Amino acid sequence: MDKVSLAEKFSRFSDYWNPRVVGELNGQQVKLAKLKGEFMWHRHAAEDELFLVVKGHMEIRLRDGVIRLDEGEFFIVPRGVEHQPFAADEAHVLFLEPASTVNTGDIRNQLTRDTLDRI
Amino acid sequence: MDKVSLAEKFSRFSDYWNPRVVGELNGQQVKLAKLKGEFMWHRHAAEDELFLVVKGHMEIRLRDGVIRLDEGEFFIVPRGVEHQPFAADEAHVLFLEPASTVNTGDIRNQLTRDTLDRI
Repeated sequence: MDKVSLAEKFSRFSDYWNPRVVGELNGQQVKLAKLKGEFMWHRHAAEDELFLVVKGHMEIRLRDGVIRLDEGEFFIVPRGVEHQPFAADEAHVLFLEPASTVNTGDIRNQLTRDTLDRI
Repeated sequence: MDKVSLAEKFSRFSDYWNPRVVGELNGQQVKLAKLKGEFMWHRHAAEDELFLVVKGHMEIRLRDGVIRLDEGEFFIVPRGVEHQPFAADEAHVLFLEPASTVNTGDIRNQLTRDTLDRI
């Protein structure tokens, strides 16, 4: 039972698109990731996914529009909705989603992370 | 499907210990509250509860210690664990917990909020 400092956790890693687990509650996980560049289009069939920008800016591209998030803003991608995360510059993002969620959703490729480090 | 700015949502209310719902995902709710002073000791029998400080400082007093949270720090109170939130000065806090969670847990008094505004 320790508190979590987001800044301290982000200082522990530097790679992109590789979420770390920093908390778990009620079957959900709190994850942190650094984003830069363009992720692939994907969706999570049965899981809603929250993106909260802690530092920087990001876009969540949807098939019918773009959500632009600055620091202190969040967006919930509803289950089943295709989305493409994008960050022109490095962004630090907190995710909240079920423990079962795989980062690339219905796509499997070299960015798929089936097991995540807990830091 | 709109994004949420934490600062904008906090600007919409000024009362203390009265959580507002600002998002929902996977049966969980994202709530915001302004805290000042001492809440009562309580526990949630079946629900883990996350406190993330967005502005200011707060304490989560436990029977065997105190967790002190600054901006950008969170703590998860496990289900069943008695806790007493406290903020010497106004603090802005994001909560994450199941939609079923009542703010005063196993206690019912004038601070109990059975239905929360969605803003």
